[in-house]
Amino acid sequence: MLKTYTPSEAQQTILRRRRGGDNPYPQSLLNGLTERFGPGSTPESAVSAILDSIRTGGDPAVKKWSSELDGASLDSFSVPQARFEEAYRSIPEDLRQALKTSADRIRAFHERQPIPSWTTTELGGTVGQRFTPVQRVGIYVPGGTAPLPSSLLMSVIPAQVAGVPDILVCTPPEPDDSILAAAYLCGIKTVFRIGGSQAVGAMAYGTKTVPAVDKIVGAGGLFVTLAKQQVYGIVGLDGLAGPTETMVIADASANPAWVAADLLAQAEHDPLASAILLTPDAGLAASVAAEVKQQLESLSRRETILLALENRSGVVITGDMDTAVKLANDYGAEHLCLAVEDPDSLAENLHNAGGIFIGEFSFEVLGDYAAGPSHIMPTSGTARFASPLNVLDFVKLTSIVALDPDTCRRLAPTAARIADAEGLSAHSAAARIRLADPAGENNVD
Amino acid sequence: MLKTYTPSEAQQTILRRRRGGDNPYPQSLLNGLTERFGPGSTPESAVSAILDSIRTGGDPAVKKWSSELDGASLDSFSVPQARFEEAYRSIPEDLRQALKTSADRIRAFHERQPIPSWTTTELGGTVGQRFTPVQRVGIYVPGGTAPLPSSLLMSVIPAQVAGVPDILVCTPPEPDDSILAAAYLCGIKTVFRIGGSQAVGAMAYGTKTVPAVDKIVGAGGLFVTLAKQQVYGIVGLDGLAGPTETMVIADASANPAWVAADLLAQAEHDPLASAILLTPDAGLAASVAAEVKQQLESLSRRETILLALENRSGVVITGDMDTAVKLANDYGAEHLCLAVEDPDSLAENLHNAGGIFIGEFSFEVLGDYAAGPSHIMPTSGTARFASPLNVLDFVKLTSIVALDPDTCRRLAPTAARIADAEGLSAHSAAARIRLADPAGENNVD
Repeated sequence: MLKTYTPSEAQQTILRRRRGGDNPYPQSLLNGLTERFGPGSTPESAVSAILDSIRTGGDPAVKKWSSELDGASLDSFSVPQARFEEAYRSIPEDLRQALKTSADRIRAFHERQPIPSWTTTELGGTVGQRFTPVQRVGIYVPGGTAPLPSSLLMSVIPAQVAGVPDILVCTPPEPDDSILAAAYLCGIKTVFRIGGSQAVGAMAYGTKTVPAVDKIVGAGGLFVTLAKQQVYGIVGLDGLAGPTETMVIADASANPAWVAADLLAQAEHDPLASAILLTPDAGLAASVAAEVKQQLESLSRRETILLALENRSGVVITGDMDTAVKLANDYGAEHLCLAVEDPDSLAENLHNAGGIFIGEFSFEVLGDYAAGPSHIMPTSGTARFASPLNVLDFVKLTSIVALDPDTCRRLAPTAARIADAEGLSAHSAAARIRLADPAGENNVD
Repeated sequence: MLKTYTPSEAQQTILRRRRGGDNPYPQSLLNGLTERFGPGSTPESAVSAILDSIRTGGDPAVKKWSSELDGASLDSFSVPQARFEEAYRSIPEDLRQALKTSADRIRAFHERQPIPSWTTTELGGTVGQRFTPVQRVGIYVPGGTAPLPSSLLMSVIPAQVAGVPDILVCTPPEPDDSILAAAYLCGIKTVFRIGGSQAVGAMAYGTKTVPAVDKIVGAGGLFVTLAKQQVYGIVGLDGLAGPTETMVIADASANPAWVAADLLAQAEHDPLASAILLTPDAGLAASVAAEVKQQLESLSRRETILLALENRSGVVITGDMDTAVKLANDYGAEHLCLAVEDPDSLAENLHNAGGIFIGEFSFEVLGDYAAGPSHIMPTSGTARFASPLNVLDFVKLTSIVALDPDTCRRLAPTAARIADAEGLSAHSAAARIRLADPAGENNVD
């Protein structure tokens, strides 16, 4: 069930990154959209219609879509205050403890992230960069078959560490107690029971109930992702999430049972999830494949795993480690796990990945819950340019320019000369007036 | 020509930030699109058609659109190597010097920006965040009526400081010598004569001539911006640029001639540019208005300035300074200039702005060319969540997780417990196998 590829075969199949256009939607999805949104509807046009209706229609439009798409008939989107503590008390004690351990470690990790504000006086006067928190952030926490309290912790806590004063959460109705318990644990008081693209629309445009936010973060399904893309620029985003991916680089020193367990954990997420092993060792590949087959028998999400292993997963026999490094950098995996003899030196050469899990005791599932970094990491090869969710996602910088008169006069001719070349005479004049007008000196303390 | 507003009038007009939907395109633009792209075409659908055609058609499609939209008939998109030095030699000596002064200062500023990679061993094993450069960046430098060599310097240099190994530039045919001279000055060797959405498409999807990039930065016109939005997620972006804005907060201590010059410099960019003065001092407002009228007479871009002053510019009499601060934070200006008695303490309270120019010697035009920070700053209120272009735009971080066996065993039960609550049994199994399988110890050095 775990197919084996040569590097060149893999590059044409499981390792291939497409840049748009090659993933037609299933006809069943398109048919469903046609029924609701009219002939020729696409997911993009449906999302656009939902967003437009919320932008102009506010709460009643949100209510309508929640009813039509989620089957929810809600009098109020807000989760009542009393529900948070109630949920927290209602979950098992050991789960409460586990969430607390996880939250503490995520917070401890992100509290160590430096916020690199700086100024210098070495260039004349004071110049620098000042970071300040985003004022209001909306966090999408997916619901669906697997309620993910961990996703709430992994997005809310970095925002809190950044000092965001106003954090709200949207999650599909009816949220699992574990999600509300995680909210309670973090001190979050505003959770709206709104899912899908209607949640994104409500947060981006604002309604009477849901205040417009400055930035939306968090992963969701297709409609959430398409909605985020369409409101990009109106609000800030953390990125657009695709199916999750784990790539393991292993050599003969790896424990095949552990590697197999990590690949299976990845595969249970989603039929489109990728679980990929790169190894120069054909013996290890065979042992891992045997372990996958055996361990699979006792797992509850067997059907999903089989689909994921079939679709976008497999073993690549890489010949040597350099080939594995090259394939990994080209692929830019969300999670990159190193089960090799000397993982630290291998890690030095890997630069495109959301997270690098160094050594077999740093397994990916720990990263999902408790290692410290956010588990919201760049997918679909976006690790080429994007980062895991982190404190810097919740701040923005302002350039600071506080020049002294001498530096101003020294630089003004440069500005005037380039402005002239650019045909911007008012720019040039604004520079020259500082040089020409001695009265200006009276304005300086 | 510089209208005066009360704060509440201004909030309904010149200070109003719309979240989508309220800016219908001019009929003349739509008519032009219908002719070329068919009935019912919008700028969005036209850009989508151009991008699709380049994704599937490569260089010949780029050539076709360059010919149709820019009237360019090019045998090759690449600027020949010899042209760079030739252009550099051909521009006037004082302009060459000015570009050099500007480049040196931009570089000196960005070289001081910290790249906050870090690790800690305080949490068990090693965890942290490692920043590495984006590997290939495409920079769009607008052409049009005002060739902007400064835009090349302001985007290329932060990328170079970040260590991006492969930087390419697209700019409309035929680039001004000043742009090629700026490229030469920075050591850029790859400039493609491609403009508009076809440049974005070529860089996002790659063609035989133009390699696919990881990130696209730089501002352009409507078609560039729409194309960037549509390729968001396939490549990284710096943001979506709207019309430029300068807000000046001034009190009685300000020099009215200087304030007027700064507003006029802003207004000459674009008929949709905003030049806004906030002041509690009606006397200053009157003096500035008189200066604007007088200085305008000698400026070459008078028609553009008049339109800009009419459309989205004006003076707001704020009653007190606190009101000015509140309006400025709500507006989130690209450029925020403080011409007041004590600008430093005012700056402390301002948190939404691309750049804060503190004191009248730190005028905005210096920021355009020579102060040091990039002049590519967030517009349209996106300073609520976005930053000026800076070195961090050209790096991405990878989370590092290198736990020791003890920490792994301490955290594995937490991971397993939350995985169970989330219904992810293979996740739970991957954690429990680390606890159960003593053979794992043999795999650790």
